[in-house]
Amino acid sequence: MRKRRVPDVVVRRLAMYLRVLEEMGPGDPDRFISSQELGDRAGVSAAQVRKDLALFGEFGKQGVGYQARFLRDELRRILNISRPLNVGIVGVGELGTALARYTLRRWAADQNYPFRLVALFDNDPAKVGTRVENLEISPASSIPTLARDLKVRIMMIAVPVSAAQGVADLCVAGGVRAILNFAPCKLQVPPQVHLQQSDVSLELEQLAFYL
Amino acid sequence: MRKRRVPDVVVRRLAMYLRVLEEMGPGDPDRFISSQELGDRAGVSAAQVRKDLALFGEFGKQGVGYQARFLRDELRRILNISRPLNVGIVGVGELGTALARYTLRRWAADQNYPFRLVALFDNDPAKVGTRVENLEISPASSIPTLARDLKVRIMMIAVPVSAAQGVADLCVAGGVRAILNFAPCKLQVPPQVHLQQSDVSLELEQLAFYL
Repeated sequence: MRKRRVPDVVVRRLAMYLRVLEEMGPGDPDRFISSQELGDRAGVSAAQVRKDLALFGEFGKQGVGYQARFLRDELRRILNISRPLNVGIVGVGELGTALARYTLRRWAADQNYPFRLVALFDNDPAKVGTRVENLEISPASSIPTLARDLKVRIMMIAVPVSAAQGVADLCVAGGVRAILNFAPCKLQVPPQVHLQQSDVSLELEQLAFYL
Repeated sequence: MRKRRVPDVVVRRLAMYLRVLEEMGPGDPDRFISSQELGDRAGVSAAQVRKDLALFGEFGKQGVGYQARFLRDELRRILNISRPLNVGIVGVGELGTALARYTLRRWAADQNYPFRLVALFDNDPAKVGTRVENLEISPASSIPTLARDLKVRIMMIAVPVSAAQGVADLCVAGGVRAILNFAPCKLQVPPQVHLQQSDVSLELEQLAFYL
């Protein structure tokens, strides 16, 4: 199946299935998990699990389920995280600092954590040259060069709305292929760049629905 | 349609449709928008838009589309955000502080922003009694009483993994109906409490898929 054709919601569920399998821990290497159990733990139906996974191949056995460790490795491969991916953060304010510490600590603590934070950027001269947990902050103007040199594949943008589009343009110029945008605004990027909005207000609105 | 039966992905799309309508600005009060345009702007098909909205009533006219302002108000009503909702934050570290400032500033700047931050909690005695933009930090032990007194409907949890379940229990004891959890772990809550995970690693994994 062509990747561009896979809906975002399916990809989101694949990541959830992987999370479930990772939370099961190493355990019995030959353990099997049924689509029912996987679905229960991920909050979807067994039929949905089978339908999602069938898009990518034959992973299970009728009446037995999925071999957990095999499926985990296959999901990592499908999600493109079998090998480390370099990521960066633009905007080292409170949110950017929190994101940086979180990513660096997960990377240090978990050998399967795929996201290696390699670059921090800010346009505040007082911040440039200082460090977050040993990673130095570079000037935002250096994004095009450094993102390319350091092979940053995903950039997290945590700057104010007024600066976000300019930063996104610099990331695109630096060959960044995917952007996770924390600024509450829509960004314009060329079609080859994948854009995702991380938006706490959207999440609160979803919760409000159930009140 | 019973609310509990509506899938999370539909609710997420409703919030996206509302975002699109809000970004159109006040404009012409009699402006109509087609399911095609609404879908294009929200990144889904026109058929999906019609199907999602049809779950909640008849909002559009064949061949004309939806009256934008009416649909916006209906979506606010459906999402339960026609009136302000009180929210709180537990854990005033870097992430919690960023969330607090963001929520307070949106509330101050936008008369339609529905989330009123009324309480901050932390278990660090050095933080208790200090303020974020005029809102005082209370001790975590006071969550059950204060959450109830202040009518906190949604609590954002931004504490370390080791503290998250204990904090969730205190929130439940305080009558909180919904939790947005930023700690990268699964929480156990009773069925009447709606739980949502905000997880930057899941979002990065979704982006990695498209690389």
